[in-house]
Amino acid sequence: MYRTHTCGELRIAQQGQEVTLAGWIQSVRKFGSITFADLRDRYGITQLLFGEELNQQLDQQPLGREFVVQAKGTVTERTNKNPNIPTGDIEINITSFTVLNKSAVPPFTIQDETDGGDDLRMKYRYLDLRRNIVKKNLELRFAVAKAAREYLNNNHFMDIETPFLIKSTPEGARDFVVPSRMNPGQFYALPQSPQTFKQLLMVSGYDRYYQITKCFRDEDLRADRQPEFTQIDCEMSFVEQEDILNMFEGMVKHIFKAVKNIDYTEPVARMTWEDAMWQYGNDKPDIRFGMQLLNIKSAFTLNNELPAKGQLLEGTDFKVFNDAETVIAIAVPGCAEYTRKQTDELTDWVKRPQIGMQGLVYIKCTAGENGAISYKSSVDKFFNEQQLGAIATAAGAKAGDLVLILAGREERTRKAASELRLEMGERLGFRKKDEFKLLWVMDFPLFEYAEDDNRWVARHHPFTAPKPSHIQTMIDNDPVIHDAAKYLEHPYNHIKANAYDMVLNGNEIGGGSIRIFQRELQEKMFAALGMSKEEALHKFGFLLGAFEYGAPPHGGIAFGFDRTCAILGGSESIRDFIAFPKNNSGRDVMLDAPASIDDKQLDELSIKLDVK
Amino acid sequence: MYRTHTCGELRIAQQGQEVTLAGWIQSVRKFGSITFADLRDRYGITQLLFGEELNQQLDQQPLGREFVVQAKGTVTERTNKNPNIPTGDIEINITSFTVLNKSAVPPFTIQDETDGGDDLRMKYRYLDLRRNIVKKNLELRFAVAKAAREYLNNNHFMDIETPFLIKSTPEGARDFVVPSRMNPGQFYALPQSPQTFKQLLMVSGYDRYYQITKCFRDEDLRADRQPEFTQIDCEMSFVEQEDILNMFEGMVKHIFKAVKNIDYTEPVARMTWEDAMWQYGNDKPDIRFGMQLLNIKSAFTLNNELPAKGQLLEGTDFKVFNDAETVIAIAVPGCAEYTRKQTDELTDWVKRPQIGMQGLVYIKCTAGENGAISYKSSVDKFFNEQQLGAIATAAGAKAGDLVLILAGREERTRKAASELRLEMGERLGFRKKDEFKLLWVMDFPLFEYAEDDNRWVARHHPFTAPKPSHIQTMIDNDPVIHDAAKYLEHPYNHIKANAYDMVLNGNEIGGGSIRIFQRELQEKMFAALGMSKEEALHKFGFLLGAFEYGAPPHGGIAFGFDRTCAILGGSESIRDFIAFPKNNSGRDVMLDAPASIDDKQLDELSIKLDVK
Repeated sequence: MYRTHTCGELRIAQQGQEVTLAGWIQSVRKFGSITFADLRDRYGITQLLFGEELNQQLDQQPLGREFVVQAKGTVTERTNKNPNIPTGDIEINITSFTVLNKSAVPPFTIQDETDGGDDLRMKYRYLDLRRNIVKKNLELRFAVAKAAREYLNNNHFMDIETPFLIKSTPEGARDFVVPSRMNPGQFYALPQSPQTFKQLLMVSGYDRYYQITKCFRDEDLRADRQPEFTQIDCEMSFVEQEDILNMFEGMVKHIFKAVKNIDYTEPVARMTWEDAMWQYGNDKPDIRFGMQLLNIKSAFTLNNELPAKGQLLEGTDFKVFNDAETVIAIAVPGCAEYTRKQTDELTDWVKRPQIGMQGLVYIKCTAGENGAISYKSSVDKFFNEQQLGAIATAAGAKAGDLVLILAGREERTRKAASELRLEMGERLGFRKKDEFKLLWVMDFPLFEYAEDDNRWVARHHPFTAPKPSHIQTMIDNDPVIHDAAKYLEHPYNHIKANAYDMVLNGNEIGGGSIRIFQRELQEKMFAALGMSKEEALHKFGFLLGAFEYGAPPHGGIAFGFDRTCAILGGSESIRDFIAFPKNNSGRDVMLDAPASIDDKQLDELSIKLDVK
Repeated sequence: MYRTHTCGELRIAQQGQEVTLAGWIQSVRKFGSITFADLRDRYGITQLLFGEELNQQLDQQPLGREFVVQAKGTVTERTNKNPNIPTGDIEINITSFTVLNKSAVPPFTIQDETDGGDDLRMKYRYLDLRRNIVKKNLELRFAVAKAAREYLNNNHFMDIETPFLIKSTPEGARDFVVPSRMNPGQFYALPQSPQTFKQLLMVSGYDRYYQITKCFRDEDLRADRQPEFTQIDCEMSFVEQEDILNMFEGMVKHIFKAVKNIDYTEPVARMTWEDAMWQYGNDKPDIRFGMQLLNIKSAFTLNNELPAKGQLLEGTDFKVFNDAETVIAIAVPGCAEYTRKQTDELTDWVKRPQIGMQGLVYIKCTAGENGAISYKSSVDKFFNEQQLGAIATAAGAKAGDLVLILAGREERTRKAASELRLEMGERLGFRKKDEFKLLWVMDFPLFEYAEDDNRWVARHHPFTAPKPSHIQTMIDNDPVIHDAAKYLEHPYNHIKANAYDMVLNGNEIGGGSIRIFQRELQEKMFAALGMSKEEALHKFGFLLGAFEYGAPPHGGIAFGFDRTCAILGGSESIRDFIAFPKNNSGRDVMLDAPASIDDKQLDELSIKLDVK
């Protein structure tokens, strides 16, 4: 027995007890002939007191930071109690100790505020993981997984493992592949998700499936992407969209309660994709705050479907607005008093290459006498105060607000306005880390136009069903786009999917859909994506086959587990919630992987290097 | 809402209720103007009754096997109750129904006793998974995972995910590798186990870790091997071997209770590896029955360490025995009356190439008058009755027993005797599927001699610690084997490991060890296995580095999850307990994977095919 108690366990109630602890030396403080040391383990920190006699032993065998020590002694009441830690009332009066293992001086301090940079901490990740702040992240991750399993188990979902060595069917992201030694010249692929397998399980009758599982995508890594990531993957049979939304809104609320002790009692808000794009400029709005976008250009169109929301620019002659595809206004509360320096800084902000705007127009809405509001703007030359007032009012501005206006090409301007809204929300403290707002975004387009190939791609994935009322449109029309310039008018551009994303604080944490479950419709979908019959059969013959033997109606959802944990932990970085993450080049710098392999291995796998 | 109830839910108590069910048509029986159909889902089977009016609709739209149907109707008491199913007291008097999806005629019957062969069932695995017998297996698998998680969570183990894209460090089995597109010419490897990561987590202070995770080994497949398999992987810090044995014996007992409702109250039996080899001829004895092996050759040696167990052949002159390295006797209870035909058949059995013996000697122990036993044997010419009696008695034979004796080269004979013992145990009904006997096998040799390379290989893995009393032997001696002929005498041949296997009914279900946690000893181990310092640093530098920063004493175990489930399910085949298994060529015949990939993919990965 290496220990009788952990370092987080002992209290004044155990006073007088003989105990043995084991852990790491966090710090050592010498006062004359006695020495105090903090001993740390996963559960906490306990103070050790080495009296005069043992001090001589310490002189011979000094305890360094991160030494692994086993110490026996008596639980004693402390003179200087430490109210900040649970064991702060006691210390252990040490009678004997053993150094179980020494430690070199760590390359950075094992503390929440460490002096170690990112690269160093990743190289010595096993030391970084000792820091309390990182441990809390992994504990939260474990708690989320436990809560998810608990909810799903209680709701009769079955955890079923699906294979990792599958078949490469690239559509969308790139597959990681695995050469097969036993089948020379052939390759397995690692799953981008268990999508087709969970659908097969529905065909097999396992009507509620889940799995918390690794998925793999060989994509160029952005800051917050990992080549391997974890999904909470779920599927249900004999359900409509409403059943799925209810079930998984319940799961997320259960996780909130279990992990954050938050009673999220109100129903999760819902918004169509079109409203999200129109009012927030993106498909994952952060609804912790308002500041919705106002499209003030007449005849603004989005996918040719949305009505004009205003005619506010009629009769004005500001060329920048009149020539722009889109003009978007945002009312920022309480910022009418911004100085010239502040508005200049904001203008510079929107001109940065990441945002890419030409400039920023503002209207200051200042409370005047008798409750009137005066409007001053950076374009006073072109607009009279009445026109400015109309725009500001339409944007929802009140006295004391600042209206910011962007103009330019439609897509870029919408994106810039979305970013500007988030930035101002951040600056004004509207994006609180401890406030959680869920949102279902629904009714996504089924297809997206791929300019390069002049064809349709699946917005979600090729297994997503159209809205029931749009199935006939899909069946009746030829998917081929004969005139690329008029793709917006193609009937396929108007087909909506039975798909839904769950958004938390402006981040997509889950997404899913009702699936196609009829062979003919699935074949039509593959054809719409430009697959020949042969290609569809080669890639997805097993699924098309399965649909012939009594496939039930089904649908599901997958949650990004890493991201969900990060947001619940109040962080934007998923890396902080992964025990052994990879860097932005897909490397594990601790392992130094990937690495070259032996010629013998290459030879056995019937492959050669071909590095250009 | 597709259904109000499942097909396993309704009872007589719901009589009169209007319900909607959805599921698959198991069978249809027409009686004059009414039709009965069995509707099946994951939860059970409910009988549907279609009256006269609906029968006309059925004539137009006949229900075939495996059609997916939604049916509304009234719960009604059945005339002919079926006591064999929980819903057998009721049927649903159908008022309307919808065919949600049709089904082609399945290639085999969806029943426990199916007419489908192995290959057909694997190709249509999604239909095979519909069979109740397969569903029960996957349900058991889920129950085992749930029970394991429950126990480990309650005992403060933390589920921590370790990476799948790691570094290739082949030692023992072959790695599956994954070419890295972003790092041309370099490869990730898929983990054979999370071994080094869980050790790093111990260094990081997460003193109780577990994970139920996939592992990968690119080995030539034997009947019961899969290229991807699942482990319950566990590790603990500040523990000695005894702590680990107690903890995981607790886990397996918890699983027994939760899954099989078995109270396994007695302590798990323990046996040294040497005793297992001596008494059972293998390292995973099935102790549900006795029939232990008796080595009757004088001066029999095993690893030069075991004492002679008898001098039973002294003074006899049967050349077959006297010339053999080993002579082993087994007393088979109650088989003294075996006919010539039966003993001939047994002789043929041991002569099969898989067993490879030259012949079989028997002694029949027949009860005579006055309680005496007479001994008759197939080698009466060479042994008198007193000698036969001595051998039979030493083997534990009683009146009515049959003693079987094998002779030959040591290793082969021991293996043959082990197989013969299991075969006779099977034939005599001693290996009951519903009886479960656990056993810890301990004190394995640390090293095994690899003849081909004239070097030591790690019997468990290179991270296993020697017994504390053997550490000095390892440090003090040069691992190089200067005289291959005398490897048995090398000090390393006598070093025992702090390792243990858990054996269930003659199958190894788990194995683990106390680990090395000091850099110097780990370096000595790598050197003993023939690794140069550079190679050791290249492959395991991260682990050696971690051991410099305060590594705690630690150890762990990994359970073969697939096999554990199979044995609990009373089967020897792990394939029956995997949703989507691969065949013996590592192929998924349903997916038709592995498969060739595009030239574009190869090109992006900087590799070329090199098939000879």
